[in-house]
Amino acid sequence: METQAQKAFQECYPEDFSHCYGCGTLNPHGLKIKSYWDGEESVSVFQPAPYHTAFPGYVYGGLIASLIDCHSTATAAAAACRARGIEMSPEKTLRYVTASLHVDFLKPTPIAGPISLRSSISEIKDRKVVVETDLSAGGNVCAKGHVVAVQIPENLLP
Amino acid sequence: METQAQKAFQECYPEDFSHCYGCGTLNPHGLKIKSYWDGEESVSVFQPAPYHTAFPGYVYGGLIASLIDCHSTATAAAAACRARGIEMSPEKTLRYVTASLHVDFLKPTPIAGPISLRSSISEIKDRKVVVETDLSAGGNVCAKGHVVAVQIPENLLP
Repeated sequence: METQAQKAFQECYPEDFSHCYGCGTLNPHGLKIKSYWDGEESVSVFQPAPYHTAFPGYVYGGLIASLIDCHSTATAAAAACRARGIEMSPEKTLRYVTASLHVDFLKPTPIAGPISLRSSISEIKDRKVVVETDLSAGGNVCAKGHVVAVQIPENLLP
Repeated sequence: METQAQKAFQECYPEDFSHCYGCGTLNPHGLKIKSYWDGEESVSVFQPAPYHTAFPGYVYGGLIASLIDCHSTATAAAAACRARGIEMSPEKTLRYVTASLHVDFLKPTPIAGPISLRSSISEIKDRKVVVETDLSAGGNVCAKGHVVAVQIPENLLP
């Protein structure tokens, strides 16, 4: 994994996109999800807090959805930049939002963590990137994500 | 709406299910989502915090997924209890978990709130309940949810 040498995708977002509760580097309350390339795939590791519980011992589904969502839109932005030869930076990073999010919950996700996400791009075309994610913890794939991300329309840019 | 006269579904959960970050009445850090019947549909209203931001002015997608997830599993439990003539109480409420969660994001959701959820049951059969949700804010339906909930297997009960 190249995480030592890389900036996280989210560290290359413009400031307006750095306040996201899920992944904004400037949101003091948030989860600060960080995503990196590992070859053709993207990866993220997250340590849940004890209060992220569903029922005792396991993570609530909304956190799993949040991790998959923010990691996937970051991966979409990174993949689109890579495909177009754009070096990610606050000035140049393309910005993607979620059109649809699908999560299959396969097993309860242990809260002891860490939770790992590993994603691949199944489609990249025009303004659309589709991201497939395996979310693992405790040695098992606990959830699978399928996210359709779209480049944010200019009229919605902050 | 009958919210004045009713206990929230989540107030009828057994204690083990009352620590959920999304909807547990006993989780001091959590969102404390509350769901009620309004005739054949279920409803919930949530006021986002200023830090639940995606980009300025709008709610991050993980919160939307969390609201839909917890409101839908609560609705599934309530619908299953109603179908079987079980009065919801901490001793008797059936417990449902999410098998799959699908969210279509139609418009950015304004963070000024409040956010309203309104759900109907599209299928109820054996241990499975399917819940369809419109999530609205600022006068628009901003997201639609489709959740397949299943009664929790006995071997996973806390």
